[in-house]
Amino acid sequence: MGDLAHNPAFGPFALSAVLLCVNLYGLWLYSGLTRNRTRTLINPEDAALLKGRSTVERDPPEVARVLRAHANAMANILPFLVLGFLYVLLGGSRTGAIAYFGVFTVARYIHSVAYVAAVQPWRTVSFLVGLLASIGLVVQVTMRALA
Amino acid sequence: MGDLAHNPAFGPFALSAVLLCVNLYGLWLYSGLTRNRTRTLINPEDAALLKGRSTVERDPPEVARVLRAHANAMANILPFLVLGFLYVLLGGSRTGAIAYFGVFTVARYIHSVAYVAAVQPWRTVSFLVGLLASIGLVVQVTMRALA
Amino acid sequence: MGDLAHNPAFGPFALSAVLLCVNLYGLWLYSGLTRNRTRTLINPEDAALLKGRSTVERDPPEVARVLRAHANAMANILPFLVLGFLYVLLGGSRTGAIAYFGVFTVARYIHSVAYVAAVQPWRTVSFLVGLLASIGLVVQVTMRALA
Repeated sequence: MGDLAHNPAFGPFALSAVLLCVNLYGLWLYSGLTRNRTRTLINPEDAALLKGRSTVERDPPEVARVLRAHANAMANILPFLVLGFLYVLLGGSRTGAIAYFGVFTVARYIHSVAYVAAVQPWRTVSFLVGLLASIGLVVQVTMRALA
Repeated sequence: MGDLAHNPAFGPFALSAVLLCVNLYGLWLYSGLTRNRTRTLINPEDAALLKGRSTVERDPPEVARVLRAHANAMANILPFLVLGFLYVLLGGSRTGAIAYFGVFTVARYIHSVAYVAAVQPWRTVSFLVGLLASIGLVVQVTMRALA
Repeated sequence: MGDLAHNPAFGPFALSAVLLCVNLYGLWLYSGLTRNRTRTLINPEDAALLKGRSTVERDPPEVARVLRAHANAMANILPFLVLGFLYVLLGGSRTGAIAYFGVFTVARYIHSVAYVAAVQPWRTVSFLVGLLASIGLVVQVTMRALA
């Protein structure tokens, strides 16, 4: 657990953490781009900056979809990063780190694309794969914290 | 602050962090189970996988309630985990860690159950207890960071 | 990367992390105060505690605005805290830490106020400034993690 610089599991964690943050930022920005494409505004004060839009009270379905994908990503990625860091601190192996973090990161990218593109069963399958990796970390961290 | 392995406050933090992540996952999965029970779909592309459901544009009230409980949990648990880890790194005591993290974790579990089951005043009381523990950590971390 | 106690970038991180958590709590609590001001309830079971309110199925526009500001803050602040901590752990300088974390924290406070008060172009400008600081950290952490 000592110095993180020499912790073999820290490198894989740092790399997948950056990729997962980029995933979150990407979905958030894409929700804005999608809103722009629908030519609607949810904040009336934007009408002066962005001409030719109609103000709406609820998100158009296209925007709501991207925001659901983002909410799913937040709900799954943020606890995973907490558990992943604890796994590293509690002496998780480099091989285990690459396996857990790699599988989760790939699964979450597939999930985001599948959600936005409305492609099934990829969305459900990738969600379940990411969830399995998360459950694996819950078990690992619990065992190591109680050891 | 040195080696986390010998930091007496780290164990309680790791354990409550796992429990709080499980709390978040639990509410998220329960929102899906509740949606299933209402036999509605929010994503039309799921109709091919799940027969006999009607596609809706807005979450049924039961689902919306679980998602509000989840949003409340995200809004409170995630900053708490940041502050809790800083408390550990900045030399917080084991007794203080057990008190802050234990009270918060119990309060948040009660809050989740009370929200989903629509039981008052338990929901409000447990929210306030969790908030008090969070404010306590804000004060502790600020004082230690400026010391 | 060694001992965080002697890491010159850790102090600025800890301080801005507390301020950003307070930003998140503040918006969350303000959404509750705003709901109170509209004299509406979203949870019917609260009617017994809070007299003279009407139960609504959807958030009034004032409450929805504060919750959008909060969602924006969650979506931007939480990944930033992950990246900021990795920046500190991967040997980021104290000057860099003060610059990235200081700019981001000020930008996010301006964003929250501008969102709630419906003031443009401050909301968009402060969002973009915060985003630039986040992109800067993504680049920094990626380079250092791969070095």
